[in-house]
Amino acid sequence: METKLQQGQQKNLILFIVCHLWEIILLEEVSNISSGPKLFQLYVHKDRSISDNLIDRSRRSGFDAMCLTVDTLVAGNREKDHRTGFTTPPKLTLQSLMSFAMRPGWVFNYLTGKKFELSNVKKKTDKGTNISKSVIEYINEQYDPAMGWKDAEYCAKKWNGPFALKGVMSVEDAKKAIDIGCTAIMVSNHGGRQLDGSRSPFDQIKAISDAVGDKLEIILDGGVRRGTHVLKALAAGAKACSFGKMFLFSLAAGGQEGVEHLLENMRDEINRNMVLMGCKNLKELNSSKLIYRK
Amino acid sequence: METKLQQGQQKNLILFIVCHLWEIILLEEVSNISSGPKLFQLYVHKDRSISDNLIDRSRRSGFDAMCLTVDTLVAGNREKDHRTGFTTPPKLTLQSLMSFAMRPGWVFNYLTGKKFELSNVKKKTDKGTNISKSVIEYINEQYDPAMGWKDAEYCAKKWNGPFALKGVMSVEDAKKAIDIGCTAIMVSNHGGRQLDGSRSPFDQIKAISDAVGDKLEIILDGGVRRGTHVLKALAAGAKACSFGKMFLFSLAAGGQEGVEHLLENMRDEINRNMVLMGCKNLKELNSSKLIYRK
Amino acid sequence: METKLQQGQQKNLILFIVCHLWEIILLEEVSNISSGPKLFQLYVHKDRSISDNLIDRSRRSGFDAMCLTVDTLVAGNREKDHRTGFTTPPKLTLQSLMSFAMRPGWVFNYLTGKKFELSNVKKKTDKGTNISKSVIEYINEQYDPAMGWKDAEYCAKKWNGPFALKGVMSVEDAKKAIDIGCTAIMVSNHGGRQLDGSRSPFDQIKAISDAVGDKLEIILDGGVRRGTHVLKALAAGAKACSFGKMFLFSLAAGGQEGVEHLLENMRDEINRNMVLMGCKNLKELNSSKLIYRK
Amino acid sequence: METKLQQGQQKNLILFIVCHLWEIILLEEVSNISSGPKLFQLYVHKDRSISDNLIDRSRRSGFDAMCLTVDTLVAGNREKDHRTGFTTPPKLTLQSLMSFAMRPGWVFNYLTGKKFELSNVKKKTDKGTNISKSVIEYINEQYDPAMGWKDAEYCAKKWNGPFALKGVMSVEDAKKAIDIGCTAIMVSNHGGRQLDGSRSPFDQIKAISDAVGDKLEIILDGGVRRGTHVLKALAAGAKACSFGKMFLFSLAAGGQEGVEHLLENMRDEINRNMVLMGCKNLKELNSSKLIYRK
Repeated sequence: METKLQQGQQKNLILFIVCHLWEIILLEEVSNISSGPKLFQLYVHKDRSISDNLIDRSRRSGFDAMCLTVDTLVAGNREKDHRTGFTTPPKLTLQSLMSFAMRPGWVFNYLTGKKFELSNVKKKTDKGTNISKSVIEYINEQYDPAMGWKDAEYCAKKWNGPFALKGVMSVEDAKKAIDIGCTAIMVSNHGGRQLDGSRSPFDQIKAISDAVGDKLEIILDGGVRRGTHVLKALAAGAKACSFGKMFLFSLAAGGQEGVEHLLENMRDEINRNMVLMGCKNLKELNSSKLIYRK
Repeated sequence: METKLQQGQQKNLILFIVCHLWEIILLEEVSNISSGPKLFQLYVHKDRSISDNLIDRSRRSGFDAMCLTVDTLVAGNREKDHRTGFTTPPKLTLQSLMSFAMRPGWVFNYLTGKKFELSNVKKKTDKGTNISKSVIEYINEQYDPAMGWKDAEYCAKKWNGPFALKGVMSVEDAKKAIDIGCTAIMVSNHGGRQLDGSRSPFDQIKAISDAVGDKLEIILDGGVRRGTHVLKALAAGAKACSFGKMFLFSLAAGGQEGVEHLLENMRDEINRNMVLMGCKNLKELNSSKLIYRK
Repeated sequence: METKLQQGQQKNLILFIVCHLWEIILLEEVSNISSGPKLFQLYVHKDRSISDNLIDRSRRSGFDAMCLTVDTLVAGNREKDHRTGFTTPPKLTLQSLMSFAMRPGWVFNYLTGKKFELSNVKKKTDKGTNISKSVIEYINEQYDPAMGWKDAEYCAKKWNGPFALKGVMSVEDAKKAIDIGCTAIMVSNHGGRQLDGSRSPFDQIKAISDAVGDKLEIILDGGVRRGTHVLKALAAGAKACSFGKMFLFSLAAGGQEGVEHLLENMRDEINRNMVLMGCKNLKELNSSKLIYRK
Repeated sequence: METKLQQGQQKNLILFIVCHLWEIILLEEVSNISSGPKLFQLYVHKDRSISDNLIDRSRRSGFDAMCLTVDTLVAGNREKDHRTGFTTPPKLTLQSLMSFAMRPGWVFNYLTGKKFELSNVKKKTDKGTNISKSVIEYINEQYDPAMGWKDAEYCAKKWNGPFALKGVMSVEDAKKAIDIGCTAIMVSNHGGRQLDGSRSPFDQIKAISDAVGDKLEIILDGGVRRGTHVLKALAAGAKACSFGKMFLFSLAAGGQEGVEHLLENMRDEINRNMVLMGCKNLKELNSSKLIYRK
C-alpha cells in the first residue's frame, strides 16, 4: 500500500510521511524507493527503548523530519468501526464479508499483497505483531497515556532536527511546543476520530498563527479535500497541509493511478484558484483574503 | 424498576436519587438495598404535612441530601403523550396495546412486577394511589403552584443539611437560592418537557458558575448522554451531572445489565476523553477548554 | 363566518376586530351580537368619503377603537394563491373543485351561508360588490397607494379616540405614529403575505418597545400560535397580541366549537407557562426573561 | 439567441450587454437592432491586438460603455458540466441526447438557428471558431491569466469613456479601480461558477459602497432573481443590478415572450415592493431599510 502511495508521491515531490503503525516495509527500505523529503511519525511507547530505537533508525535511514503524535495517547472510541466490525488488520464478519464480496479487487490485493504486520517494532514487542491483535489494542497496550511535555522534549532533543508536534489545538500548547524545542506543529484532531466535540483544526489556525506564526511552522492536518481548502489554510497562516483519508480513498478507488490523479487535481486546483483569487504569490495569500462567517 | 436501577448504581458508587412520585418501594427500604449516597427528590404539596412527613422520614432513613423540585409546580402540557396516550401508570388504548404487543418482554415485567402505586404518600392522601389516577392529575391536584421562596426556605431549614433546588435556570434565582440556605442547585428544565422554548440547562451553566460558582454546587440536569457531555458541563462550571432518561432507556432496553453497561460506558468515555483533552485532573478541566459557537 | 367567530369571542371577552373587507354583516349589526370590546380595521380609499363614512358609522355603532391598515396599500403578489387559484370570493377551478370535493362540510357552509359581499361599502361603490371581483382587485382599485402620514393623521383626528396604526415595523415609523396622534401601533407584516423578505414582527418588538414603549401601546400581529408566543411578545414589550390565521384555521376545522377550543387552549397555555416561568404577574414578565439566539 | 434577448430588452429600455464570447452577430450589427444603451463585455487576450480591435470596433459601433472582465482569467473547474457533459457549443453524449429528446423545441431552435461561432474574433484567431472547440478551451488558450492592473488601465484609457471592471469583490480592489480610471465596478463572482468558496456579491456591496460609493458606480452581478433582490442591492449601495442566468432561463423556457414576461415581472415587483416598503423614491431606499442576519 505504502509502495503505491510512494510512487504517486515521487512524481509530485511532496512530503512523504511514514507512520510506524501503518507501514508494511521497514524504515530502512523507504529511502530506496522515495527520493523526496521524508517525515517519520512517532508515538511514545510505554517501553521508551522502542521510541529510542525508532528515532535512531529514522536518522540513519535519511529521514528529514520527525513528528511526535500527541492526539492518540489512547485510542478514540470509533463507534462506526464497532458497527461495521472494522479492525486493522481486518477481521472477517458476515457484514465485512458482504462488503468484501462487493469489491473483489480490494480483497484480491489484500490476499495477494504483503502480510500486514508491524514490521518496525516486531523485534521489540510481540504485541500487535500477531495477526489477531488489532491496532486499537496495540495503541492502548503500548502507548503511554501519561506521556507529558518532558517526554516530548526528550524526543525533540534526541532527534535534534526539524521536529513537529502533531495534535496541538491551542495557542497555549503551541507556545509550550516552542519552549521544548519544536520547529513545527501539526494542528490536528486526528481526522475527527478521537475526541467527540473537538474543534476542526482549520478553526484554530488563525489564532495560533497570530500568536506564534513567526516562531514555528504550522501544518494543517485534517479536512483537506480540495485545492481551495489548502488556499484557505495558507491564508489563515498555515505553511503546509497534510492529508491521510484523501490519499487512502484515492488509493482504494484507483491504486497508484488514483493517487497520481489526486495529486494532479490538487495542483491544478491550487494553481487555478490562486489566479482567480488574484494572488500572484504566497505572500499575497494572507488573512485579508478570508472572511469568516459570523 | 428502582430495584434494578439500584443494583446498577451500587456497583458504580454513584449518587442514587429517589423521587417520591416514581418509587414503588418505601423510603425506609432504600437504605437496605443501597449503601451509596442517597438524595431524596421532594415536591411541595398543598397539604404541607405531606412534605413535612417526607422530610422527616428521609432523615430517619439515612438519606444524605434533599432536593426540592421547582420546575414542576404545574404539569407541562406533554403533547406527545396526548398523541400516544401515554400516562403513568399506563392506560390501555389500541395504540399502546399495539406498542406493547411489539415488546412482549416489557409487558411481562409490568404484569408480573410490583404494582405501581405511590407508596410513600398513600397514608396521607387517596389521590394518585388509585390505579386510575395518572401522575399528571396527581401533580396538578396535589402540588402547590403558588409555592414561593418562603416555602423553599422552610424546607431547607427543616432539612438542615445538603439541600439543592432543582429547576433553577438563571443567575438571579441562583443568588436567591444561596440566600435561603441552599448548598446546591440543579440547573434543569425538567428534560425539556415542561416549558416550551425554555433554554437548554447547559447554556446557562457558565453564567451561573461565573456568578455564584464559589458559593454553591451546580449540578447539570438534562441532555447528558455521553462522557463528553459530562466533561463539557464540568468545564463550564458544574460540579456534577444528573440524568434520568438515560437511565430509563438503558433499563427498558437491557434491565440491570443495561444500566451497568451504561455506567461503564460513561466511566470509559470520561476517562478516555480526559486523556485526549490533555487534562490530568479536574482543575485543568476549566472553561479555557471550551469554545462556544458564535 | 364572523358570527361564529363572535360567539367564540363572546365567551372569552377578547377584543373583536372587524375588517370592512371581510365582514358579511353591517357595522351597525355588530354591537347587537357582541358586547365585548370592538375595533374597526380601516383602509384608506382613493375616494375619501368612503373612509369618512366608515369612521362615522363605527363611532355611531359603538366601536371602541379604530385601526388604520398601512401594510396593504397595494396587494402583495401572493404566488401560492396564483398556483392554487385561490381568490376571495372563491372562483371554481379544477383544482379548487377537487379541494372542495374532499371537504364537503366546507362547501355546504359556503353554499348555504350568507352571500359574500362587501356589505359596508356597497352603497358607496359598485367595485368589489360584484361576486366576480376578487378582493385583490378591490384592494388595487380602491385603496390609495400614495397614502401618507397626512392621511393617517386625518383619520386619527377624525376618530379622536383609541387609534392604532397597523403595519408599523420600525422605530422611526413608531415615533411618527406618536407625532400624528396614535395611541397604539400594531407591529405587523400582514402575516408575511405582502412583502418578500420583510422581518418577522416579533423581531422588531424589543427595539420599538425600548424606544417608545412608554408612549404608545404595542400590539404584536403575526406568527402567534401558542401561549408561549404571547408570553414572549409581552416579555419583549408588547401589550397585546392579535391573530388572524389562527382564528380562521380553527373556524375552518371546527366551526364555533373550534374557535372556543382555541381560546381555551390559549388561556391554559398562558396560565400554565406563567407559573412555569416563575412569573406571578405581568410586571415580572419583562425582557430579563428573554435570551435571544446569537 | 441574442436577437430575442434584444427584442425583449428593446421594449423595456434596459442596458444591453454584449459579451464577445456569446454573440453570434457582429458587433457592428447590434446598433441596427437595439436603440437602447449598449455595453461591451471585454476579456483581455494574450494577443493584445484582439482586445484593441474589439475596443475600436465597439466605439465605432456606438457602444455606450465598456466592461472588462477580471473574474475569468482562467476557466473555473465547472464540475457539474463535467458530469452532464455540457460544453459550449454542445457536444452530443448519451446523457445530453436524452436531455435533448425530452425538450424537442430546444433542439429544433439549435438545429435551425444561426450557427454558433465566435463571429467577432474569427478574423483574428482560428481558435474557438471551430465548432469542436469549447468555450472553456478558448478561455484557457486565449485569455491572459497574467493580466494585471496595468492591462486594465491600458483598456480604460484606450476606451476613454464609461468603463467598468467586472469581478471586483473587495474594497481594496475597488479603490485600485478608481485609481486606474474606472467609472464603475461590477461586483461579481461570475455566477458562483469560477471560484469555490467565494462570497456572494451581495455580501460585499455594503462595505464597498461605504468605502467608495461616492467615487464610482457599483453594479451588483449575480443572484438576482426577484424585484426584492434588486431593492436589497440598491438599499445596500448598488446603483444597478445585472443578470445573466435569469435572462437565459426565461429565454430557454419561453423565447422572446419569456424574456418580456421576466422584465414585466421585475418591473411589477420593484414597483409594488417600493410601495410596501414605504419608499417614495430611490433616496429613501438606503441602508436604514436593511437589517442583516447575525
